[in-house]
Amino acid sequence: MKSFIYILAAALCIAAVPANGQVKEDFKPAPNVQPGKQYPQVNSERCVRVRVVAPDAQSVKLDIGGVKYDLKKGADGAWIGESAPQDEGFHYYQLNIDGADVPDPSSLYYYGASRWGSGVDVPAVDEDFFTVKNVPQGQMREIYYWSEVNKAMRHCFVYTPAEYDTNPTKRYPVLYLQHGGGENEYGWPQQGHTAAIMDNLLAEGKAVPFIIVMDNGSWTMPRPAAPAAAPQGQRPPQAPQGQRPQGGQRPQGGGFAMPSNWADGIADTFVKDLIPMIDSRFRTIPDAAHRAMAGLSMGGMQTKTITVAHPEVFSNLGIFSGGTITVADCKNNPEFAKTLKLVFVSFGSRELENRAPGFGDGTDPRQETEELKASGVDAHFYVSPGTAHEWLSWRRALYQFAQLLFK
Amino acid sequence: MKSFIYILAAALCIAAVPANGQVKEDFKPAPNVQPGKQYPQVNSERCVRVRVVAPDAQSVKLDIGGVKYDLKKGADGAWIGESAPQDEGFHYYQLNIDGADVPDPSSLYYYGASRWGSGVDVPAVDEDFFTVKNVPQGQMREIYYWSEVNKAMRHCFVYTPAEYDTNPTKRYPVLYLQHGGGENEYGWPQQGHTAAIMDNLLAEGKAVPFIIVMDNGSWTMPRPAAPAAAPQGQRPPQAPQGQRPQGGQRPQGGGFAMPSNWADGIADTFVKDLIPMIDSRFRTIPDAAHRAMAGLSMGGMQTKTITVAHPEVFSNLGIFSGGTITVADCKNNPEFAKTLKLVFVSFGSRELENRAPGFGDGTDPRQETEELKASGVDAHFYVSPGTAHEWLSWRRALYQFAQLLFK
Repeated sequence: MKSFIYILAAALCIAAVPANGQVKEDFKPAPNVQPGKQYPQVNSERCVRVRVVAPDAQSVKLDIGGVKYDLKKGADGAWIGESAPQDEGFHYYQLNIDGADVPDPSSLYYYGASRWGSGVDVPAVDEDFFTVKNVPQGQMREIYYWSEVNKAMRHCFVYTPAEYDTNPTKRYPVLYLQHGGGENEYGWPQQGHTAAIMDNLLAEGKAVPFIIVMDNGSWTMPRPAAPAAAPQGQRPPQAPQGQRPQGGQRPQGGGFAMPSNWADGIADTFVKDLIPMIDSRFRTIPDAAHRAMAGLSMGGMQTKTITVAHPEVFSNLGIFSGGTITVADCKNNPEFAKTLKLVFVSFGSRELENRAPGFGDGTDPRQETEELKASGVDAHFYVSPGTAHEWLSWRRALYQFAQLLFK
Repeated sequence: MKSFIYILAAALCIAAVPANGQVKEDFKPAPNVQPGKQYPQVNSERCVRVRVVAPDAQSVKLDIGGVKYDLKKGADGAWIGESAPQDEGFHYYQLNIDGADVPDPSSLYYYGASRWGSGVDVPAVDEDFFTVKNVPQGQMREIYYWSEVNKAMRHCFVYTPAEYDTNPTKRYPVLYLQHGGGENEYGWPQQGHTAAIMDNLLAEGKAVPFIIVMDNGSWTMPRPAAPAAAPQGQRPPQAPQGQRPQGGQRPQGGGFAMPSNWADGIADTFVKDLIPMIDSRFRTIPDAAHRAMAGLSMGGMQTKTITVAHPEVFSNLGIFSGGTITVADCKNNPEFAKTLKLVFVSFGSRELENRAPGFGDGTDPRQETEELKASGVDAHFYVSPGTAHEWLSWRRALYQFAQLLFK
C-alpha cells in the first residue's frame, strides 16, 4: 500500500507547479457542481477555480493535489482563485477557511481520503465512455444483508444489466469490484461511473452482460453479545448501525477495524456471507469460471489475496493500480494456477513513470505480466495514458477489463 | 407553499429558546456522523452539539432551525458548542466560519434547503419503525430514463419489495412518492428511510407489497435543438447532464426551471414518460386502482394537482403537510370523485398548533377530511405528534399511509 501512496504523492507534485499568472479565462462549471451552483470550474489548461463567500475570513485556500493555493477576496466578500494545471480525471479537494478544512459548499460530495467531501472532474478526452446516454439502462441497486462473520447488517451495491429484468430465467456471471483505501462501496457507483460504463459497452456490443457487486472493503470486528432488548434511544441489537445510511453513506455502528487479520475477515465476509447472498438473491451462474474479482489499489491487493486463497470461488481477476500476479504466484499456488482463466493488470501512466522500471517493490509490472502471459495464462496489461492513482485510471481499467470478461 | 414556510418558521422558533446554561452532559454521536467521526452529537434534552477545528477563525457558529449559536474555542484550536433543544426528527444545519456558510466536515450530507449539506437526527421515541433490521430486504434501485417531455435523461429511484425477485410472474401496485420544495429524488430514499419503513412493515404483515417510485419534482424546460455532434469536451446531445450524478446528486445540465407552467410540465413528465417507463420496466398492475401518488409539502400540492387532473391514472392519494382534498374538490371534478378510492392527509402536530383552527388559507384540514369522509370517501387524517414541517412527520406519514394502501 505504502508504495502506491508514494507514487500518488509523486504524481501529484508534477501538477503542483504554480500557474504562470496568465490564467486562460475559459472556465466552465465542472460536472461536480451542486444544482444551481457555478463552482468548481475548470479551464482548458485544466486549472481548477473555486469561489466561496467568506466576508470575515482572513485567509481562504484551495487544497487540491497536496498543494494549498491562496484565494483572493473580491469586493463582494467572495474569495476566488485557482490551482495549477491538474491531470485529467477525478480529484478530491477541500477549502481551508482561517485554518478550518471544510468541504466546498458549492460542490458535490464523495467518499474518499477517509471523508465525505468535495471532488472535481477535470474533463477527460475520452469521457464519452462513462457518460450517461439514451441507451438501454441497467440498474444500480442498493442492498442490505446480514453477515454472520461481522454479526451486523452490511451494505453493498449491485449493478444489473438492462436485459436482466426482461430475461426472467437467464443466469449471469458476476464481477465483485472493490474500492481503494479510504474509500467505500459508493466509490464505484459514483466516482467510478460503473453503470454508465457498462450500459455503454453493452449498447455497443463490446461486452457480454454480467452482474457487478460493489461491497465495502472493511469488515466489522464482531462486538460482544448485545442485550436482549435495546434500551430506549439505542440501536436494536439486530441492526447495530441503526438506520439506512443517509446522504449515500456507509452504515455506522460497531467500530470498523482493520486488525492484523483484516484479510481473513474480508475474505470470510465474501466467501461465507456476500457471495452466497448474491447467489441466492440474483440469477447468477454460481461457479468459479463465471465469477471474477477486481479492485483498485487496496482493493487490488484484496483481490489478489482472496482469489489466490480461493481458486474454488474465482477464476478471473483484475488488479487496478494495486500490484500484479506473477509466475511465482502461480507456481506457489498450484490450485490457483490450475483454474485461473483471466488476469488483468493495469496502472495509470504517471504511476509507472514515477517508479519504472523498478516499480514499488523493485519489480516491473508490465514485464511480470508479459512473463505470466508467456507461461500460458490469459494475462493482459493496460496503461491509462496521462493519469495517476485516481478514478480516471480505474474507469478506463474497468472499461478495458469488462471487454475481456466471461467471453 | 408560503403558508407552510410560515408554519415551519413558527415551529422552529419554539425550539429557539436558548439553553439555560446547564447543558446535560450525556451527548452521543448522532446517526449522521461520518465514518470515524464523533460529531454532531445530541443529548437527552435534544440539544445538538458540534465541533470543528478552526484554529485561526474569529467566530464560528452553529446554524440550525433558523438560529445561529456561537461556538467557543478550546485550547486545542477546536470550536465547540450546542443549540437549544430541537424537536425530535431530522434537521438541516450548517456551520458559519468567519462569515462563510459551510457544511460541517464531520456530518453526512443531504439534499434539502436547495443544497447538499449537513443534517442531524434528534433521536425519535419511535425510531424502530425506520431502523434497518435483519428482515427480508427490498432493493432501492437507481434508474435513468429518457423523457420526451424534458428532452433529457431523467433520474429516479424505485423501491421493490423483497419478494419482487422471487415471484417472477407476480405484478404489483405502484406508489409515486414525491419530495418537497428545495429537495430532490434522494429525499425519500435517504432522509425518508423509505426502504427500511417498507421492509419492516412487510416483515410484520402490516402492508401489502407494492413498488415505490421516487422521481424529481422539477422538470427541465427543453432546450433548443442540440447540434448533431457534440464538440470536443462538451456533453453529447442525447445526455445533456453528461454524467451519472456523483455523491448522490441529481443530474445537472439544461437549466431547471419552475415557470408558470411547471405543474403541466411535471404532470406531463409523469403521465407521458415516467409512468409508461415504470409500467414497461417493472411488473406493475397498470391501472388507476393500483396506482397511488403521494408527496410532502410541494410534493403534496403536485399530488393534488396531478391526481385531480388525471383520474384515469391515479385512484389513491396521500398529501403530507401539503394541503387537503375537500368535498368541493370532488364536486368540482366528478370524474376524479367517481374513481377516487383512498385519500390520506397528514400534518406534524406543530404545524397544526401554530395555525389551527384556521390553517393556511383559513381552513381546518382535519375538519375538511372529516367532511370528505362523511361524504362517502375513504379518507384518513393523521397527525404526527410533536413534530413540525420535517422528515420525522413524513416518515410517520408514509408508515401510516402504506398500511392503508391497495388493501
